[in-house]
Amino acid sequence: MTFDPERYRLPPGEPVRLAEHDPSDTAGLDRDRATALLDEGAERMAELQERLFAHGRWAVLLVLQGMDASGKDGAIKRLAAGLNPQGLRVTSFGAPTSTELAHDFLWRIHQAVPPRGSVGVFNRSHYEDVLVPRVDAAVRARLRLPAERMDDGLWDRRLADIVAFERSLSDEGVVVVKAFLNISRGEQRERLLARMDDPDKQWKFDPADYDARDLWTDYQAAYEAAITATNAPHAPWYVIPADRKWLARLAVQQVVLGALKGLDLTLPPLSPAVVATMQEARQQLKG
Amino acid sequence: MTFDPERYRLPPGEPVRLAEHDPSDTAGLDRDRATALLDEGAERMAELQERLFAHGRWAVLLVLQGMDASGKDGAIKRLAAGLNPQGLRVTSFGAPTSTELAHDFLWRIHQAVPPRGSVGVFNRSHYEDVLVPRVDAAVRARLRLPAERMDDGLWDRRLADIVAFERSLSDEGVVVVKAFLNISRGEQRERLLARMDDPDKQWKFDPADYDARDLWTDYQAAYEAAITATNAPHAPWYVIPADRKWLARLAVQQVVLGALKGLDLTLPPLSPAVVATMQEARQQLKG
Repeated sequence: MTFDPERYRLPPGEPVRLAEHDPSDTAGLDRDRATALLDEGAERMAELQERLFAHGRWAVLLVLQGMDASGKDGAIKRLAAGLNPQGLRVTSFGAPTSTELAHDFLWRIHQAVPPRGSVGVFNRSHYEDVLVPRVDAAVRARLRLPAERMDDGLWDRRLADIVAFERSLSDEGVVVVKAFLNISRGEQRERLLARMDDPDKQWKFDPADYDARDLWTDYQAAYEAAITATNAPHAPWYVIPADRKWLARLAVQQVVLGALKGLDLTLPPLSPAVVATMQEARQQLKG
Repeated sequence: MTFDPERYRLPPGEPVRLAEHDPSDTAGLDRDRATALLDEGAERMAELQERLFAHGRWAVLLVLQGMDASGKDGAIKRLAAGLNPQGLRVTSFGAPTSTELAHDFLWRIHQAVPPRGSVGVFNRSHYEDVLVPRVDAAVRARLRLPAERMDDGLWDRRLADIVAFERSLSDEGVVVVKAFLNISRGEQRERLLARMDDPDKQWKFDPADYDARDLWTDYQAAYEAAITATNAPHAPWYVIPADRKWLARLAVQQVVLGALKGLDLTLPPLSPAVVATMQEARQQLKG
């Protein structure tokens, strides 16, 4: 049984309906098979990451989104297990600071874009800026946009700006892939309860997560609008079933692996000058 | 005799022909009148900058471009004379460092965008990235884009990415205005010669400026392509006659002043809570 993450890739140009995506899908795998595939994937990814670094032209950026407890942290941990930490840059975006709110919403995001030759992961991202303030009036009230820019067109403008930003990254050699961890409301409930019962996880407790639960339907609608508007060939979305952690972790890893596989990382031939220098060094070593 | 900088604003949608813009135009002014207008402008700008800061929602960004010795430094100095330095952020962009080349060309630019409530000036900018490597093959060879992104479409893609980037800033409340200091080849020659003869200015000598002079026609063509592609209502270009320093300095200041004047910087009324606190403080002071 193999696994192709393209099964979760959204076709461009079609509106996404999250209710039509089964959060408990297994792709015909079980946990043991997924673990074996994850181990294989980690090995292959380490090879490709080294070539990515040596090649030094492309970068790969995974944008990871999902409701609280959908398994983002665990998926990143498993992904990182297959990567050289020196060529990996993980950035978690929390609620914007006052310094960040004093700039356009993409300002902090752009700074965290991985340099050429490396892999970047965004744990939450610029998508939060078309989700949280859209759904939550109290957060929206803290935005510092001019009143003239706070009209009904705000979200469509931000979504168009995201499309353009991701296209610019793609033009410059940053391969953008985006994964939405699609957890069911029931499974989220179980995980939040478990989190409160586990002394090692109680630090993760945040009352805001429970407010977000009340707004579940609004968040699903905001996600659908954002994913539909920004699903593009240069920055595709994957809707990943997240009720089974092992499946979600495998799928996230394979999405990144697929992005790496899609690149021609053939190294350019050494220049005659370098070849000559190496030859000299060789002679010298041979004494 | 008044002065309206809109006379130098390019109409959107029309290709620009620099040869049709007279570098020695004076707008019917002389040096004395320009100096008087500059002093008036500085006063008005200081008032508006304070309101901009208090309002805290808009920012104004001046992008300043021009061939070497076209008077960018002097224009910025005169502009700054009318502004509170705490609300002014001037960034000079030189040849990109290796760290900067390891990112997309807009990465370093985005970091320098002024925060809400302030005025930013770019002394050279992202436009260099569609000028210098386009004209100069040696610079182009140092770009670290993937080979697949180094095709003939590179410049058009970068120009489209600039349009989108500037639109995103505009959407978020950053008013972008762009000034090209249009110096004639003859005047540039005089200034470069004077610079070499003046011991206080010899430090400005850079052999690259003389290479750029050889490529004058290529640079003019690259500027025309860049200005034409990126002249938009949300980020207009001004072609400013630069053979007379006093005229260029006045025009640059007035472009920024015009951007500030275009904003509704009415402060929101104080909240009842603040009014109550102020009333308490007043009573206490009156003791």
